[in-house]
Amino acid sequence: MSNDVYIIGAGETKFGELWDKSLRDLAVEAGLEAIKDANIYSKDLQMLYASNSLAGTINEQSNIAALAADFSGIAENHVPAVRVEASTASGGAAVREAYLAIKSGEYDVVMVGGVEKMTDIYGTEIIDVQSSILDREWESFNGATPAAMAAIAARRYMHDFNVEREAISMVAVNDHANASLNPDAQYRNKITVDQVLNSDPVAEPLNVFDCSPITDGASAIILASEGFVKKNRIDGVRILSSAMAEDYLALHSRKSIYTLESTKIATEEALKKAGIKREDVSFLELNDSYSIYGLLELEDMGFAEKGKAKDLVYDDIKLNGRLPVNPSGGLKAKGNPLGATGVSQFFEAYLQLKGKAGQRQVKDARYALLHNMAGTGATSVVHVVGE
Amino acid sequence: MSNDVYIIGAGETKFGELWDKSLRDLAVEAGLEAIKDANIYSKDLQMLYASNSLAGTINEQSNIAALAADFSGIAENHVPAVRVEASTASGGAAVREAYLAIKSGEYDVVMVGGVEKMTDIYGTEIIDVQSSILDREWESFNGATPAAMAAIAARRYMHDFNVEREAISMVAVNDHANASLNPDAQYRNKITVDQVLNSDPVAEPLNVFDCSPITDGASAIILASEGFVKKNRIDGVRILSSAMAEDYLALHSRKSIYTLESTKIATEEALKKAGIKREDVSFLELNDSYSIYGLLELEDMGFAEKGKAKDLVYDDIKLNGRLPVNPSGGLKAKGNPLGATGVSQFFEAYLQLKGKAGQRQVKDARYALLHNMAGTGATSVVHVVGE
Repeated sequence: MSNDVYIIGAGETKFGELWDKSLRDLAVEAGLEAIKDANIYSKDLQMLYASNSLAGTINEQSNIAALAADFSGIAENHVPAVRVEASTASGGAAVREAYLAIKSGEYDVVMVGGVEKMTDIYGTEIIDVQSSILDREWESFNGATPAAMAAIAARRYMHDFNVEREAISMVAVNDHANASLNPDAQYRNKITVDQVLNSDPVAEPLNVFDCSPITDGASAIILASEGFVKKNRIDGVRILSSAMAEDYLALHSRKSIYTLESTKIATEEALKKAGIKREDVSFLELNDSYSIYGLLELEDMGFAEKGKAKDLVYDDIKLNGRLPVNPSGGLKAKGNPLGATGVSQFFEAYLQLKGKAGQRQVKDARYALLHNMAGTGATSVVHVVGE
Repeated sequence: MSNDVYIIGAGETKFGELWDKSLRDLAVEAGLEAIKDANIYSKDLQMLYASNSLAGTINEQSNIAALAADFSGIAENHVPAVRVEASTASGGAAVREAYLAIKSGEYDVVMVGGVEKMTDIYGTEIIDVQSSILDREWESFNGATPAAMAAIAARRYMHDFNVEREAISMVAVNDHANASLNPDAQYRNKITVDQVLNSDPVAEPLNVFDCSPITDGASAIILASEGFVKKNRIDGVRILSSAMAEDYLALHSRKSIYTLESTKIATEEALKKAGIKREDVSFLELNDSYSIYGLLELEDMGFAEKGKAKDLVYDDIKLNGRLPVNPSGGLKAKGNPLGATGVSQFFEAYLQLKGKAGQRQVKDARYALLHNMAGTGATSVVHVVGE
């Protein structure tokens, strides 16, 4: 048996500023929903992978895998629970660990849950904590923030390739258009290019509508082995491939500040392992924490030449376009609860590939390409999920 | 091929208050030493697992796997890097992930590096950060610290089983005796039972000599597949089994406050998978972050009836005794750099099983049983390592 890995269930909280829910509330809600959706019992679970980026700092809580296992009732069965962290790529990285664990033959049914409760702190405090995803000694101790680093890349990119500011805005416009169709999304209002251009500046040339928001939320999926799926005649969605790559942590160490080398390598490997071509991809979920990254990612994932993603963002990436991007609403509009974000891409892929995405359903969805990234590109995790 | 997993190299920094070394300095030092010891090139590495408990808070740095990959030069090869966290069981959990990754067939050569730089903050600040490993809302927000929780268990245990305070002290005495023979240890002075009993109180009945110290340090090991080991004719040390189990996070939720259920289950599973019996074990490395845990662990790992570990701690656990415990010097005396601690147990096992442990060599060492635990017992990871 090839020991393929399948998604057999998925759950998610609403994304947003959820003042009445704690870290553990969110984790439990998404986890139990996934268990219910998979139509299994919690005692069927053999391992829990928890993805979280910043709970140690924001919520002053370590070992949140144990916390989630405890409060969702699965610690009663003593199943192992571990947290996986790779900054904002934690979700993709956690799915990857679960995928490898099933591939190893050790487990048949595993949960991956991602959670972030960001609104427990606010203002400059959250910006400072977020800046821990950069190289603290060489970048953020000197005042750099993730938005500032994205802005530096954007400025140089616009200059070198003569890219108009409007093209960058289109990434956010597309996210909001899709999120308007997603009941879980943080922002369900459509926005225009003019609104992005006239929103408050954050780090020139990026405005507040170019930046993913502060989000509370959790997502969970259940993965199962081929053996389990066949035995129980489950119609799951297959993870065709998983790939991960690293780059230098600090932006200044990279060969090019607008080239996401880790994304390039992980995408190439994921497609190769899955045995599919770019033209086979039905839709993309991209890690557009800042709108500029939407363009860079389209290029470094091989869907456009460097500097040419602007040709895709006005039409092709739309929900009914040639290459739909972020049908979920993406990081900008669905929301970006850091540790949950990468897992929530799988939630979306699961719905889409099962034909259950409602109003935002991508037509004839067969293969999803999911891209999760840490900070300015130090880590990228790419998965191909298919029928 | 059975696809067994081998340790083929190990490296470690000195443990202690290392004022002149940063988090990244420590990670790089241990990692490069392990690469050198394994006699491989850094380009041979296919994945890095980083274990760390509290860098997000203590050092305000996330994504330390990327940081370590960057500064040790392996990010140049774009190898994936991910952090694994399970509080103070992070090290064992990270080795376990690496073990599963090799078992999956995805990788042949993987590094696991554990690091903690704890002296970047001090006083009540470090105690508060350490308390994040408890249930923050139900335990530490109300003033509980890890030492206080250990003390509560100790008090009740002493009462229920009529255990003398001296027996608890012997765990620390044994650690210091062994550490006196370990050049990497934080404390190389021998201590007496009287010194433990007369040291400053921390949380009654535990004194400062019952508590593992604040430690900076890093450990790293290189794991390789059976295929790689055979092809390159490497004389590695085999990981016979890996097991992990969970319990409720908060102490008050447990059925018994002096029974480490997660340790019990993980040990049973590890021994069973390895196909060895307790009497086959040459030595133990135990997670004795507080001396009381040394006794509880001996019992819950099945080497003594509950309440009877006191019969082992005066003689049997000595380096030349029937069941040597912590030849490394253990958490109390070798030191307890949280994220590195679990990995450093493998460093010790590697040396011992290769017959390279110098003055602290356990005679005829064949099988090591390694126990790494989170906080008051929420998570336990147990491995059997052998010839």
